[in-house]
Amino acid sequence: MNLQEALNSFNDWQNKLSAYNHAMSVIYYDAATVAPKKTAANRAHALGILSEETYKLSTGDEIVSVLEFLDSHKEELNEKEQRMVYLAYKGMKEMKKIPIEDFIAYQELLVKADDVWHKAKEDSDFELFRPVLEEIFEYNKKFAKYCAPEKHPYDYCLDQYEKGLNMEKCDEFFATLKARIVPLIKKIGEAEQVDDSCIHGDFDELSQEKFSLELMKIMGIDLGVCGLGTTEHPFTTSIGSHHDVRITTHYQRDNFASSMFSVIHEGGHALYDMHSDDEFAYTNLDGGVSMGIHESQSRFYENLLGRSEAFVNYVFPKVCECFPNQMKGYTAHDLYKAINLVTPSLIRTEADEVTYCLHVMVRYELEKRVMSGELEVKNLANEWNKLYKEYLGVDVPNDREGVLQDSHWSGGSVGYFPSYALGSAYGAHLLHKMRESVDIEKCLAEGNFEPINEWNREHIWKYGCLKNPDELLREALGEEFDPTYFTNYLEEKYSKIYNI
Amino acid sequence: MNLQEALNSFNDWQNKLSAYNHAMSVIYYDAATVAPKKTAANRAHALGILSEETYKLSTGDEIVSVLEFLDSHKEELNEKEQRMVYLAYKGMKEMKKIPIEDFIAYQELLVKADDVWHKAKEDSDFELFRPVLEEIFEYNKKFAKYCAPEKHPYDYCLDQYEKGLNMEKCDEFFATLKARIVPLIKKIGEAEQVDDSCIHGDFDELSQEKFSLELMKIMGIDLGVCGLGTTEHPFTTSIGSHHDVRITTHYQRDNFASSMFSVIHEGGHALYDMHSDDEFAYTNLDGGVSMGIHESQSRFYENLLGRSEAFVNYVFPKVCECFPNQMKGYTAHDLYKAINLVTPSLIRTEADEVTYCLHVMVRYELEKRVMSGELEVKNLANEWNKLYKEYLGVDVPNDREGVLQDSHWSGGSVGYFPSYALGSAYGAHLLHKMRESVDIEKCLAEGNFEPINEWNREHIWKYGCLKNPDELLREALGEEFDPTYFTNYLEEKYSKIYNI
Repeated sequence: MNLQEALNSFNDWQNKLSAYNHAMSVIYYDAATVAPKKTAANRAHALGILSEETYKLSTGDEIVSVLEFLDSHKEELNEKEQRMVYLAYKGMKEMKKIPIEDFIAYQELLVKADDVWHKAKEDSDFELFRPVLEEIFEYNKKFAKYCAPEKHPYDYCLDQYEKGLNMEKCDEFFATLKARIVPLIKKIGEAEQVDDSCIHGDFDELSQEKFSLELMKIMGIDLGVCGLGTTEHPFTTSIGSHHDVRITTHYQRDNFASSMFSVIHEGGHALYDMHSDDEFAYTNLDGGVSMGIHESQSRFYENLLGRSEAFVNYVFPKVCECFPNQMKGYTAHDLYKAINLVTPSLIRTEADEVTYCLHVMVRYELEKRVMSGELEVKNLANEWNKLYKEYLGVDVPNDREGVLQDSHWSGGSVGYFPSYALGSAYGAHLLHKMRESVDIEKCLAEGNFEPINEWNREHIWKYGCLKNPDELLREALGEEFDPTYFTNYLEEKYSKIYNI
Repeated sequence: MNLQEALNSFNDWQNKLSAYNHAMSVIYYDAATVAPKKTAANRAHALGILSEETYKLSTGDEIVSVLEFLDSHKEELNEKEQRMVYLAYKGMKEMKKIPIEDFIAYQELLVKADDVWHKAKEDSDFELFRPVLEEIFEYNKKFAKYCAPEKHPYDYCLDQYEKGLNMEKCDEFFATLKARIVPLIKKIGEAEQVDDSCIHGDFDELSQEKFSLELMKIMGIDLGVCGLGTTEHPFTTSIGSHHDVRITTHYQRDNFASSMFSVIHEGGHALYDMHSDDEFAYTNLDGGVSMGIHESQSRFYENLLGRSEAFVNYVFPKVCECFPNQMKGYTAHDLYKAINLVTPSLIRTEADEVTYCLHVMVRYELEKRVMSGELEVKNLANEWNKLYKEYLGVDVPNDREGVLQDSHWSGGSVGYFPSYALGSAYGAHLLHKMRESVDIEKCLAEGNFEPINEWNREHIWKYGCLKNPDELLREALGEEFDPTYFTNYLEEKYSKIYNI
């Protein structure tokens, strides 16, 4: 094998892998959006086989020798090739540590879990979901042991979603937030409350959908490449490459702001995914590098831009066009205040910017304890409710609005949640940096996202997975990441809104 | 290799193939229903690779030796195994005759063709579609030459959709129909015309969708297994097995009957697919055996049942519930007459039962000539228009309503159309036979499809691909198929409606 032959084989292998990923992404997307309800077992049959094929493709003798060859010739590769080979070689070695039976059984479990979770959530019945959730946590412990026996299993999980993250860093990060956010919430609670009646009412789904598409266009999302679907839990997925991206939302008839900010949030994910360097398509450099960076983009659009006064002023006439009767008598400023109401609540995805991180901390705390063996899954619902009372002061009335609200665990994502808080904080620091060269207020006031998107494209999006998240962030920021930009931002914005 | 090992390998191979088919079906379904418009190239990338894998899987040395072994031990196999091996062995030998480059290039061409056809239809521009259509016909000629050099290439195509069908049989069949249908149309044209104003008006999509789901329920379709989507051209597809089936429809705002009968038609396909013997799932015996038998079911539900007076009487109150304002002042009998209006028209899928077969004959005639080399694709639009004038007496105003109306050619289906006419005629003979043991009028009057479905299940559906279509039909009918049952049915029904 010479270098060119090895690179050709490597290239064929990446293409093939992308086709399998394409297939599995469409199957998942279809399942979440339109598949008939009783088809989970049929889907599990296909996904089990496809993931077995993926496993074999990823760990087969042929690719192993190609990767070993390329790794031993890495000085002869260019930067992109080096990174591709590094990631593939590392991924292959890690995957080989997981026995194929476990790998397949876990994939099949996740298909089943998705179905069970939906039913359990519908019936608000944690006990229904408990057995599969126990299995999911057990598999995560098992995989951690296979892949990184030297680490705490939860550190292994955290690292899966944000390279280099561990409990020590999380603890410090959350402590910093807590120290500033808890007093802020207290002050807000004592101040005069804002009126959010203008986002409540009766908003039919068709008008909300029309508004969603309008928002996507304003954000500069090409609707020819990015589709919009409806699901229980909003998400973003790429289909095979950044040339086909889908976002989903969930329409609440009594509150149009819920879907509005889901769309802007998922739209941020979509913009990131859609703007990888075109050369990266069908390779392992395509798409976002980590969930932390991903959330830094989604929460950037959702909150730092979407919930800003300048943007609300711009978008208000469009809100009135879509919901003329419901908006009668309200002003843009009413809407701005309504969407920035701070109040301890039950549902993470509906939470305001200030209390949001406390929702994340609950999940972090619980995952840490389960993965450490300190907490049994059967006690998870109770502990969830206890922590919500402790952190947010709210009583959880049922599992649907409690421990069953998120789709992450049923999807096997243990260790994902901290990315949301990290991403929020990354975003605030990025905003600070972006202000040096972009007049963000002016852009938002004009509904012109192009200069903002351009900055993100140049500093974040185009790199795909070429750099590690910490390196990418440091280079974009020009300094080390500092979470106090986030707490400063929160204090400044909400002191004004609440006159404190 | 012993028999059990060979059967296990064969079983694994069928499972794997079904997973690939599952993936490709979902990708096609997604493309037709919700995929963003500019994603065709991305999809072609994945489909090209997946179909290459399918080809390799279907023709690889491993399966070839397994199939050869099983074929040489066929006396030791049970009936189902014998049939599976027979079909797989035959399919493998046929596939091996097509070079892999041609196979892949054709799959990629079809993905592109679908995209181009949509655009061409939108713009009513045959010239845009012509180059890909030329390629599609060329590939069909090439494949015919590879696989059956001894046959006329169009006979090869016909046989693909209905085992044993050829031009000789088609010519005879169509001549029989023509001899009875053309005079009938003439008489109807001279009679007093029926008023179809009650199906026209303004019918919003949401109400039509609600009505569609209601129709599916009445037909006894389990909505937990069969989904409903919206596409340019209605179709039915199974996803991996008969445990997940999708039908689609196309809503016309000004005519609710269009989607109504699309839903009943596709619902007939779905019922057939959904009721293969459960043991057949993930094998090559799953689903319908031929397009002729398939159309015998779809057109059975659409016309013989759906357009009958008994069913219209039953369904009329439900029509009124969904479209209360539009139905004001009309009776069930008005609706019965409106949906049975006979009039030479432009669009096949909208055509009445009587003129329908003439639409099919136009396509049969054109395909035959193109495949024989007598007609060039560049002249297809003109010839289409000429034949529509000759057979149906109508002037085709544009390509959209002419040669571009069907999705079959862009999907590579050359030789499919005759199945529609055959299926209609099969259905009429089956109805005659079913009457011996089922009181069909009573069932329809009560909206109770179960006895009808049960008869079809027992005589047609459950067999999947276990028997050849001619054998299946002969056994269900208890005699040789006779197209005059169909012409008798048409004469009887329409003489009454038109008082002739």
